[in-house]
Formats: sequence, structure tokens, C-alpha cells
Amino acid sequence: METIGFIGTGNLGYPIAVNLLKAGYKVKVYNRTREKALPLEQLGAIVVNSPEEVAEKGGIVMSLVADDKAVEAIATDALLNALGEGGIHASMSTISPDTSKALAAQHAALGVTYVTAPVFARPDAAAAKAGNGVISGPAAAKERVKPLMEAGFARKVFDMGEDVGSANVLKLIGNFMIAAAMELMAEAFVLAEKNNLDPRAAYEMLTTTLFASPIFRNYGAMILDREFAGQPYFKAALGLKDMNLVLQTANKSYTPMPMANLVHARLTTVMAKGSKDPDWLALASGAFEDAGR
Amino acid sequence: METIGFIGTGNLGYPIAVNLLKAGYKVKVYNRTREKALPLEQLGAIVVNSPEEVAEKGGIVMSLVADDKAVEAIATDALLNALGEGGIHASMSTISPDTSKALAAQHAALGVTYVTAPVFARPDAAAAKAGNGVISGPAAAKERVKPLMEAGFARKVFDMGEDVGSANVLKLIGNFMIAAAMELMAEAFVLAEKNNLDPRAAYEMLTTTLFASPIFRNYGAMILDREFAGQPYFKAALGLKDMNLVLQTANKSYTPMPMANLVHARLTTVMAKGSKDPDWLALASGAFEDAGR
Repeated sequence: METIGFIGTGNLGYPIAVNLLKAGYKVKVYNRTREKALPLEQLGAIVVNSPEEVAEKGGIVMSLVADDKAVEAIATDALLNALGEGGIHASMSTISPDTSKALAAQHAALGVTYVTAPVFARPDAAAAKAGNGVISGPAAAKERVKPLMEAGFARKVFDMGEDVGSANVLKLIGNFMIAAAMELMAEAFVLAEKNNLDPRAAYEMLTTTLFASPIFRNYGAMILDREFAGQPYFKAALGLKDMNLVLQTANKSYTPMPMANLVHARLTTVMAKGSKDPDWLALASGAFEDAGR
Repeated sequence: METIGFIGTGNLGYPIAVNLLKAGYKVKVYNRTREKALPLEQLGAIVVNSPEEVAEKGGIVMSLVADDKAVEAIATDALLNALGEGGIHASMSTISPDTSKALAAQHAALGVTYVTAPVFARPDAAAAKAGNGVISGPAAAKERVKPLMEAGFARKVFDMGEDVGSANVLKLIGNFMIAAAMELMAEAFVLAEKNNLDPRAAYEMLTTTLFASPIFRNYGAMILDREFAGQPYFKAALGLKDMNLVLQTANKSYTPMPMANLVHARLTTVMAKGSKDPDWLALASGAFEDAGR
């Protein structure tokens, strides 16, 4: 089977790399903090010391790193030359559509096709291949990348067309909607609690009927349990970065988003107050704390 | 079968009365605008001229009217005396928990049990008995009311305990969550539209995965179609009344709800600008209009 280059084995990248190895792909892995990638060697991965070492001529490199600057840092000319003509870079990170467009042009100049392929999944869902993939970019390259997303984390891959920025926009609005759902549930639950309605009974009714969706079920249960200080699966710092990208994209396109401003402020407060390394679920603590709970 | 008293045959009450008649109940109906109730006579209903005429001694009266004042106006001593000892008033209107508590005390003084039994359903869903019911109040009375809710509109009835206010609080937080869901979808869709992502493709992905729930599917489709000026199924004026109740309940219990403030402001603008009689779906027009769309 094909050798895949994989850059970025953080909370989410790691289980995806594991799934690719289990699916039988040869995987060359680079991670900035090398130690985090090393356990993958036991599954057959080759852990290398620079981004460009993961690439094969005309092959596919998948990357999943923290932010725009981190993608720019790994997408060096060295990497692109190693990929060369016919090579594909499937960029899974949550970054701005503008950065994707700039990267796509830079890649094209060296014969490499840039594809945007973000991930909707918390790490456990990715491990179970129960996540959802989104993809946009040139058609032929997308067809080569989709099976890897399915092997790596996705129950389904949704195609958003040829514009490399479109999949980024969808990832951003999806994360904004999750953040807003957290805030609205937090406000609803604290109002219930303070007015003699059992929030768990309200949760059970609402999330098995009108709001019977994975986000409301899963995040709602975590909010009720106030799991704000647990191990971060998706760090608040990354959530705030995403809301910054939402507002930046909104600002550039003259799109007022008062609800996005609100969840951005909540995450800003999480970072201002947080002594440790909170999950972005802590967004929901704001409504409770403001109400003295 | 038992004779049921039914007060209020508006957009939502009418199909519920129809279902009760079809289920075989004898139904006595009162509506302030008598003409709206008259077609029910063809299904066997008896249309009367005052609230108290719908009641039978020890029987059940269901009411579904516009607001707190309207419930207070029909719950006269004449009605309660006509119901008498062992009678039940199932109050389905969306009103404040405090009003329910005051009404419950007034009813109890005349031997009548007050039960709160709000409806989650748009008129078409009620007609198809695909709605959801919520109930709270004294246990024995609830057991008599639940079958009527099932016969009238509800796929399922969720019991929120003995406090008559609890079902009101759940109805209020449910409507707040729907309003907030409209706003968040509107902001997301307009951001997509202005950034080269097809909002329908985004809708399809998000509402078949993370947000695969009836509210996001149904309201999302209506928002994409911009059905803001169509026939009102749930009037913006009533939606604003509900958000007033949410904020009033929040205010009394010292519960800051910035997202509720936002959707309240959206509906206030709908009423300020609306020349006709808009559906509360028009809440979603705010984000589009603010963005020049």
C-alpha cells in the first residue's frame, strides 16, 4: 500500500495516524515534539526528524497542526520539493480560508496540489472512525485524499467544491455553532436550576426531541457534569483561536455576528481566568459563574 | 367517552381540538372570536359562548391562549365553580411560572387542580400528533391529563414533577433555545454565503451530522428559503412575549443570559420593522440584513 506522510500527532492527529497504520498504510510521521510520535513506531510508523522527510515524490502528505502559522512553518519549499509534481498536501488544520488560498498558490508554483480537509471529531470519535470529514480543492486530488480520511477518522466525507477556502469556512462555522450551542445550553440549564426545574430532566426532554443531535447530547451531558477542569480534549486556547478566525473572516467580509462575539468573549475569559490548560468546554462555565453557581 | 372543555382555538389549539374530536371525545369549545371555533361543529364539537360553559362538574378543561393575562381572564371563579371539586384545569399556554403558581393557589381554593401542560409543536406537527408535551403539577391530576395530550398532539409527554411552574420553565428554555438556534444558524449561513461556501451544502453537512436534530433541520431549511414573510405559524409577537418571560424569569432569579438578550433584541426589531404579522422565524432575518443581504 501507498506510503503516507503525516505531520502533527497531537490529541487529534495521533489517533488518526494510528487508524491509518491499522488500515495497512505505510506512514512516515513528523511531530515537532518527537517523543509524542514515537509510540507509533510500535505500529510500524517511521518517525522522522523534519517535515520534508515524510514526503514521497508524487505522494500524499497529511498535516494536522495548531494554527495558520504552524501550517506555514511545515509547508516549506523543502517539503513541497520533496512532494514534487503530482504530490498532494491534505491540510486538515483549522485555519483561515485566506491562508489556504495563499498556501494553494505557493504549492501550485512547485507542482503540488493543496487540498483542505478538516476534521470534525473529538479524539475518541476519530479513534472510532465516527468523525466527519470536509474537503475542498481540485477534484482529482480530492479523490485521492477521501479514502485516507475515511481510513483515518471519517464516517463520511462531505465535498464543498473546488475553492480550497470553502472547507475552512465550513469548519469555522461548525465550531462557531458548537461554541454557541454550549453557551445556549449553559444559559438554559442555569435558568432551570435557579427556577426549580431539574436541569437533567430538561436536558433529557430537549435532547431526545427538538435538540436530539450529537452536539446537544454529548456537550449537554458534559456541561451538566461541569467537566470544565478535566483533561483537555480540545483546548480552550485552540477554541479561542478558532473564534478569532471566525471573527476575522466575518470582519473581512462585513458580516456582523453578535453571537460569535459573545462566545469569543466567553473563551477569552476562560483563558484570562484559567490557571491550567482547560478544555474549551469551560466556555459553558461563564453563564454558571455569572449567575453565582 | 368523557366530555372535555377546550378554551382557545388559535393556530395551535384548533388542530388539537380536531384531534380530540377525532379520538372520540365529546368536546365543548370556547374561543374569544367565536367564528374561528365554529368549523369544529362539523366534527361534533359544541361551541359555547363563555369559558364556564365548557366545564362539567369534576371534569377537565384544557386551555391554550396567548399569554398570562389571557389565562387569568378565562380562569374566572365562574369557570372554577363550574369545574368544582375534583375538576382539573390543564393550562397549555406559554406563561410565567409565577403566574402558574398564583393560578394554582386560586384554583385550589375552589377545589380545582391546576396542571401546567405546555405544547412543543408547530400546528402541522400538532395535527400529526408529532408534538411533545411537558407536564407538571399534582400527580393524580397529571395522570388524567396525559392521555388527552397524547390524543391531542403529543408523541410523548415528559413529566417535570409536582411544581406547577417547572413545565413553564422548560417551555421557556425550550423556546429560548429554538430562538438562539435560529440566530446561530442565520449568522453561520450568512458568513458562509459571503465567503464562497454554499450555505445549502453547509446546512446539509451540519444538520445530518453534528446538528442532526428536528429544530436545526426544519428551521434551518426555512431560514435558507428566507420564508420570513409567509403565513405566521408562530407569530413573532408571541415569540417576543416568550422571550420577555424568559428575561423576566432570568431577572427575578439573578440569571444573566446574554444570548437571550440578543434574541430578544432581534425579535424586538422584527416587531419594530414588521408592517404585517410576521412569523417568529423573521428573527433570522436580522443577521442577513445587518450583513447587507
